[in-house]
Amino acid sequence: MYDFSADSADCARSVEAGLSDYLSGARLSGPGPASDRVVEAMRHGSLEGGKRLRPLLVRQAAAIFSVPRDLSLPAGLAVEMVHCYSLVHDDLPAMDDDDMRRGRPTVHKAFDDATAILAGDALLTHAFAMLADPSTHADAEVRIRLVAELAAGSGAGGMVGGQMRDIEGETSGFSEGDIAVMQAMKTGALIRAAVRMGAILGGAEPRALSALTAYAEAAGRAFQLADDILDVTATAEAMGKATGKDAALGKQTVVARLGVDGARKMLDATVNEALLALRTFGPKADGLRATARYFAAREK
Amino acid sequence: MYDFSADSADCARSVEAGLSDYLSGARLSGPGPASDRVVEAMRHGSLEGGKRLRPLLVRQAAAIFSVPRDLSLPAGLAVEMVHCYSLVHDDLPAMDDDDMRRGRPTVHKAFDDATAILAGDALLTHAFAMLADPSTHADAEVRIRLVAELAAGSGAGGMVGGQMRDIEGETSGFSEGDIAVMQAMKTGALIRAAVRMGAILGGAEPRALSALTAYAEAAGRAFQLADDILDVTATAEAMGKATGKDAALGKQTVVARLGVDGARKMLDATVNEALLALRTFGPKADGLRATARYFAAREK
Repeated sequence: MYDFSADSADCARSVEAGLSDYLSGARLSGPGPASDRVVEAMRHGSLEGGKRLRPLLVRQAAAIFSVPRDLSLPAGLAVEMVHCYSLVHDDLPAMDDDDMRRGRPTVHKAFDDATAILAGDALLTHAFAMLADPSTHADAEVRIRLVAELAAGSGAGGMVGGQMRDIEGETSGFSEGDIAVMQAMKTGALIRAAVRMGAILGGAEPRALSALTAYAEAAGRAFQLADDILDVTATAEAMGKATGKDAALGKQTVVARLGVDGARKMLDATVNEALLALRTFGPKADGLRATARYFAAREK
Repeated sequence: MYDFSADSADCARSVEAGLSDYLSGARLSGPGPASDRVVEAMRHGSLEGGKRLRPLLVRQAAAIFSVPRDLSLPAGLAVEMVHCYSLVHDDLPAMDDDDMRRGRPTVHKAFDDATAILAGDALLTHAFAMLADPSTHADAEVRIRLVAELAAGSGAGGMVGGQMRDIEGETSGFSEGDIAVMQAMKTGALIRAAVRMGAILGGAEPRALSALTAYAEAAGRAFQLADDILDVTATAEAMGKATGKDAALGKQTVVARLGVDGARKMLDATVNEALLALRTFGPKADGLRATARYFAAREK
């Protein structure tokens, strides 16, 4: 029987240990010695916190193909570094201007804006360095496919493009379709990349990859819906970051359109859609099933 | 006989055309359609300008191993995208706060700070996407080595680490050794990566790779020395960007320590060091030789 709490806690511990090990001057040196200040800021922006859901999705997707946990960890760390870099840049005064993240000062508050920009850049860069490292996977073909997948999920047609659309919408307004596209890119694309990277590690056939992609896209929508609902219903204390921001900005989320109850119903339907995409997989997909259900139930 | 002007002009045209082709909504789409605004800002930050020296170095190093020009172009484009992203972020108000670049408004002036941050992030991300694309090189092993090389050159132990050290030095002061390390990382690391990526494309043996690395490190120092000299001697009009900034910031460059004449002597010696590293290569290395000499002679 799959135990979500145990697996997610174990994954979070592995991610924390893996990032702490990797984000060190010794590991990040290149032609020159790594800058201590950048390394410290990278650690501040990525250690001690977060639910590590994206590495969990990599692990759970890989588990369908019986990939051992330690073999899926590097890909999970790379996705998490991209997630963390995006938060560091998102929090900057020129973007969301957030002072707190996970109950601690954001990187630009703990350091300064220039350091936060550079630390974000370095986290993104070293995510790809991690995937390219031959010690993480013997097959260069698999490693380069992971690079391609992560880049597609985090670039102009993925996460970064979604962030840009979000900012544009705040000033010029969104149609319903715009919101769906923006959210699918801003948060969905990296969740999709995480699941697909697990499948690539497992050598998934096209049909399986396609089913897992459908799962990931529905799961991503569920995650975003839950986030929008929590922005309305949760306290800043419980979330460890400011809430009520969407409403304050007049952001046209699904919750603003349907109300909390309507959004919760849509969330349940979306989770069911994710589960349906997994119907051809056996109990080895119970991890992914549990995570989709968790998205609907989470309280922070 | 190698013709530097013709080859560098041809390379610059190829880079311009290659970037213009690649930086389009169609090519940058991912799970979602690329954001038009991000694509426009990426184009603004990378097209119509620059000497394209890094792609030229990739091409010239690859030429030693008889790699056709079109096969070395994608790696050159990837290095150039990383160079351009670093300029976009460097120009931000939180960093160097430059309004003009190559005689045009910087990206954050033409758009806004948030867009410049995201466009820089996307240029970096798509540099790796470019290298991962199977259409650029048949061998996954070569593609992933290029990813590793570019990431090492541009990360915390390379370019980004050098930028951080530069900012730290402005506030806390530099020793002579600090300046050397900072410059080797800030500008040297990407030049080094460009040359090594050309060598990797050519399947260079360890001894040849080592000689080319020595060339690249000396050439990088020559490039930086020339830049520091030009910061003192050239006009803003000729450079297309502000000059005299180093002195205004009290930055302890080699020129500040040795004077312009002393720095020019050191530049000549450094170019000779670069040429010496190429002694075992025949006329096919004339491109790299010409570029090293160009560094000493350039006027902008």
